[in-house]
Amino acid sequence: MKLLPVTCALAALSFGSHAYAWDFVLLDSDKPASNLRITSEQLGLKVDKPFSVSMRTLHGGRQEGVSLIDIDNGTMKLTVVPTRGMNVLSAQVGSVRMGWDSPVKEVVNPAFIELNGRGGLGWLEGFNELVTRCGYEWVGHPGMDNGELLTLHGRAANIPASRVTVHIDETPPYAIHVRGELKEQAFKKVDFSVQTELVTEPGAAHFVLNDTLTNNGDYPKEYQALYHSNFSTPFLEEGARFAAPVKQVSPFNDKARADLGDWQTYRAPTPDYDETVYNVVPYGDAKGNTLTVLHNKAASLGVAVGFNVQQLPVFSLWKNTDTRGQGYVTGLEPGTSFSYNRRYQRPLNLVPTIGPKQQRQFRISYTLLTDEPAVSKALQQVKSIQDGRATEVRQTPLVDLSKE
Amino acid sequence: MKLLPVTCALAALSFGSHAYAWDFVLLDSDKPASNLRITSEQLGLKVDKPFSVSMRTLHGGRQEGVSLIDIDNGTMKLTVVPTRGMNVLSAQVGSVRMGWDSPVKEVVNPAFIELNGRGGLGWLEGFNELVTRCGYEWVGHPGMDNGELLTLHGRAANIPASRVTVHIDETPPYAIHVRGELKEQAFKKVDFSVQTELVTEPGAAHFVLNDTLTNNGDYPKEYQALYHSNFSTPFLEEGARFAAPVKQVSPFNDKARADLGDWQTYRAPTPDYDETVYNVVPYGDAKGNTLTVLHNKAASLGVAVGFNVQQLPVFSLWKNTDTRGQGYVTGLEPGTSFSYNRRYQRPLNLVPTIGPKQQRQFRISYTLLTDEPAVSKALQQVKSIQDGRATEVRQTPLVDLSKE
Amino acid sequence: MKLLPVTCALAALSFGSHAYAWDFVLLDSDKPASNLRITSEQLGLKVDKPFSVSMRTLHGGRQEGVSLIDIDNGTMKLTVVPTRGMNVLSAQVGSVRMGWDSPVKEVVNPAFIELNGRGGLGWLEGFNELVTRCGYEWVGHPGMDNGELLTLHGRAANIPASRVTVHIDETPPYAIHVRGELKEQAFKKVDFSVQTELVTEPGAAHFVLNDTLTNNGDYPKEYQALYHSNFSTPFLEEGARFAAPVKQVSPFNDKARADLGDWQTYRAPTPDYDETVYNVVPYGDAKGNTLTVLHNKAASLGVAVGFNVQQLPVFSLWKNTDTRGQGYVTGLEPGTSFSYNRRYQRPLNLVPTIGPKQQRQFRISYTLLTDEPAVSKALQQVKSIQDGRATEVRQTPLVDLSKE
Repeated sequence: MKLLPVTCALAALSFGSHAYAWDFVLLDSDKPASNLRITSEQLGLKVDKPFSVSMRTLHGGRQEGVSLIDIDNGTMKLTVVPTRGMNVLSAQVGSVRMGWDSPVKEVVNPAFIELNGRGGLGWLEGFNELVTRCGYEWVGHPGMDNGELLTLHGRAANIPASRVTVHIDETPPYAIHVRGELKEQAFKKVDFSVQTELVTEPGAAHFVLNDTLTNNGDYPKEYQALYHSNFSTPFLEEGARFAAPVKQVSPFNDKARADLGDWQTYRAPTPDYDETVYNVVPYGDAKGNTLTVLHNKAASLGVAVGFNVQQLPVFSLWKNTDTRGQGYVTGLEPGTSFSYNRRYQRPLNLVPTIGPKQQRQFRISYTLLTDEPAVSKALQQVKSIQDGRATEVRQTPLVDLSKE
Repeated sequence: MKLLPVTCALAALSFGSHAYAWDFVLLDSDKPASNLRITSEQLGLKVDKPFSVSMRTLHGGRQEGVSLIDIDNGTMKLTVVPTRGMNVLSAQVGSVRMGWDSPVKEVVNPAFIELNGRGGLGWLEGFNELVTRCGYEWVGHPGMDNGELLTLHGRAANIPASRVTVHIDETPPYAIHVRGELKEQAFKKVDFSVQTELVTEPGAAHFVLNDTLTNNGDYPKEYQALYHSNFSTPFLEEGARFAAPVKQVSPFNDKARADLGDWQTYRAPTPDYDETVYNVVPYGDAKGNTLTVLHNKAASLGVAVGFNVQQLPVFSLWKNTDTRGQGYVTGLEPGTSFSYNRRYQRPLNLVPTIGPKQQRQFRISYTLLTDEPAVSKALQQVKSIQDGRATEVRQTPLVDLSKE
Repeated sequence: MKLLPVTCALAALSFGSHAYAWDFVLLDSDKPASNLRITSEQLGLKVDKPFSVSMRTLHGGRQEGVSLIDIDNGTMKLTVVPTRGMNVLSAQVGSVRMGWDSPVKEVVNPAFIELNGRGGLGWLEGFNELVTRCGYEWVGHPGMDNGELLTLHGRAANIPASRVTVHIDETPPYAIHVRGELKEQAFKKVDFSVQTELVTEPGAAHFVLNDTLTNNGDYPKEYQALYHSNFSTPFLEEGARFAAPVKQVSPFNDKARADLGDWQTYRAPTPDYDETVYNVVPYGDAKGNTLTVLHNKAASLGVAVGFNVQQLPVFSLWKNTDTRGQGYVTGLEPGTSFSYNRRYQRPLNLVPTIGPKQQRQFRISYTLLTDEPAVSKALQQVKSIQDGRATEVRQTPLVDLSKE
């Protein structure tokens, strides 16, 4: 990768209301993606953990022309994919990687994917991220709804971002904000835009997604959102556990029903396991905030995914403990909805509506739990949010898929 | 936008039969799109209205890699989209804009559109132009015909142009010709090419499309063409009117039937109006030339769309007087055919055939009517073409869609 | 085409185990396609037939961004299309061209093709090569199988190659190897990679494809391969003949059945002929090697296509002797399978399985037979492989398509 010199990077600097406003445009209608690099040193910032944000472009195969943004906050290295819905490809602290190994090795340019292919499963040809945005017109399994084939998990992950910027706060801790806009527009059908934001702080083993969905249309419109957050080793292993403040849990289908008793623990990579999915209704605290935790068997390493149940009231736990080669991965998926086709979720009241010009905020935090005390503290938080409230373990799926 | 210096522009100059032949290649198989700019000044032309033709490329979002050609004829500024069928994005004279505000804000690269998505309505994800070419293998609503899903309005608008050139006439008025070829080819299916041309003259508030469809195949082939020409304010408003020499008018469907009495006048932006469509068979003059006019309530501003009924025998009036945010727009659409699915148009004799190596010409003129006398003169022309001949107002749609 | 100077080409040189290892990376994830040119002269090679390998990019239309590799081995000029499955566009020796004239004139970027369009025939919008790779998840006519629409002839031809390299042997005859990897991956569906290789020697009127399919997945998986090798004039003409050591031949369908008596001879371009296809089970020699020959009426010019029946046990002869304009072409198509939809080929045992981490090799050789002795010698080889063994001429198609 050839990097543009500092002067080029700074040429992208636009002056705001302050003497030094650190706003950089990485991509815009009149600005192609380039091999830009922004560093704390260039900005004259003396921070304990020097940071950098850089951009590069992939070539060859189905990843031709895909832009990547690499953020190194001094502790955590994150890669964001503007060409794929500002998805987070991976996050790494030292040798610990949040993310997974999909059979899909390329970061696939949506230009080469037919979402309508494979009976609506074309999305699977690009699925390999740590966080894959699902929505916002719909999420869930492919199938007909209102006479139209809804493709798996909607379009968001395959919408290239329109205007991508980096903002560095001018005051400590100098938080780094990477923003990109997704336009989900079709005449007479939908007029959504999603202002995505990833925020991380220099030195933190932590990042936040902070998205704003706007219905620019003049009519109320159904929407759905789901943040497909995917983890593998070293968190996922035999005996790894999932914890959350749970109001209700139910199996997604009959297969999951058979394993319901073990829904919170994980298997080793298991040939022919395929997947089981559990539908969770989490409890939140007084403000609606909740926390879900995945940790290894020894409870010495984990991740915490936090969100607000007023924004994202339900949660899918996707246990894809198949072989490593097929994808040994679990998905922690806060959403407005489960992963059923949209037509099944209306009766469950899981297809919300957004009014004209209204906005919806989705804030999800991702924290690496680097040691036993960190895991323990997070589990305490889960317990504290549960606060002794009952958990309903529902034996039967919410949707009877046998009638399909 | 960085512009190449004059020398580069002139390097594109190819010498014809004259001492100075002003022919520029903007795009070809061995010539990528570049930020070229050609001006009357560079050409040493002393014209009252200096003109320029320039090219630029859009980035980010679903418009990544889309080329635009901006033509400023000194009076009218036009933008043509080579990447999208040489469609005319907009035309502007001073503050008066021909075109409309679609919810689709990007100029979408066809690489990111699945025309077969949304049940064949994928076309709607890119629809926002002043003139969108529809055809040429078929036009009309999506649906099955001969065992194949025909997608909305065919492929033309989503075919990138192959060789794009600019020709400036060497004699006054130095007409500017922008040409691009569309190849609509599939082994065993279709072998069409369309030489598109946009012509405008320095200082004119007027342009012409002059397209030539060629069937390069060895067999006769069905074809359809429709020029989806879309206007909004300041022409479209409550009380705005449409005029044409009309032989027959009929409602497209039952909804349009209900409003048939007012088919020539327009509503203000109307929530939940959606659209009504009227099928018009226009009269032409002795040579087949006809003129259709849209003007504002005061008849002080309008547009005239002229064509020849031997080339384009029918016309659709699309009244999409929905809210501004949803798209407040009317389409004046000369065509070989109406907007029904092709299978419905064969019995109407609106699916013509083009023989092997034959050509069809489609010439459509667009004129801004800048004041009351101009509108009045155009309406006189309409009246003169009608020439007292009768108008059949057919109460029922030509196609019974209830059987669908 | 602007060519990079020698220094740039050599910059791509990576050092292997020898003092001079001639390995060039033309395209990789961090290396975009460029107008590179490698010549025997640059390498300091004194060969009778100086050779070159160069790369260029096409622009405009649906071929925007398509990379081509031109190989001139001193005798034969080959063009390979990395953006389209490393297909071989054409091979030419003097005025003799291996390949054909498809109505599809562009080398179409897969980004602009919907394989699922046209009822699964979208592939036809890009079909124009001398050798089009078909497979590897499936081949054959479109249709439903296991609840999924299989599109015509699979995805291989529309997968852009991921890492493209050129290797020149360091010892005479200095064979030229052009390699590119195709990744056919979808989570839960398929995890194939195909290392493609084209090999030719300086001065030879001959090239070889040598592909390795790997199932990277952990489960056995069905696969199919078919090398759609297409020839026209000067080989194909009225009275041209096809020869092969044939164990069994049968008509593909009822139309082919009617012409079964003449299955080895060709017609002149014939309006409305469309196509006939014959399913051939070839004999191989003791090692499984076999040879198929197409030659002109005078038997003075031909092509030989060789392969191994252990790798590719069956063969389709596609006789598309329609008019020149529609495509006057014959396909010699060694494969694991015929061209029926996959669901029809399972009962024929023509849908093989590849185990986890297993590989399959496909080696096909293409030789220009430049004169009567060369044709005669090749026909002798065919006879020698047949070795007097019987040919079953099966009157009825292997699959009863009337039940479809």
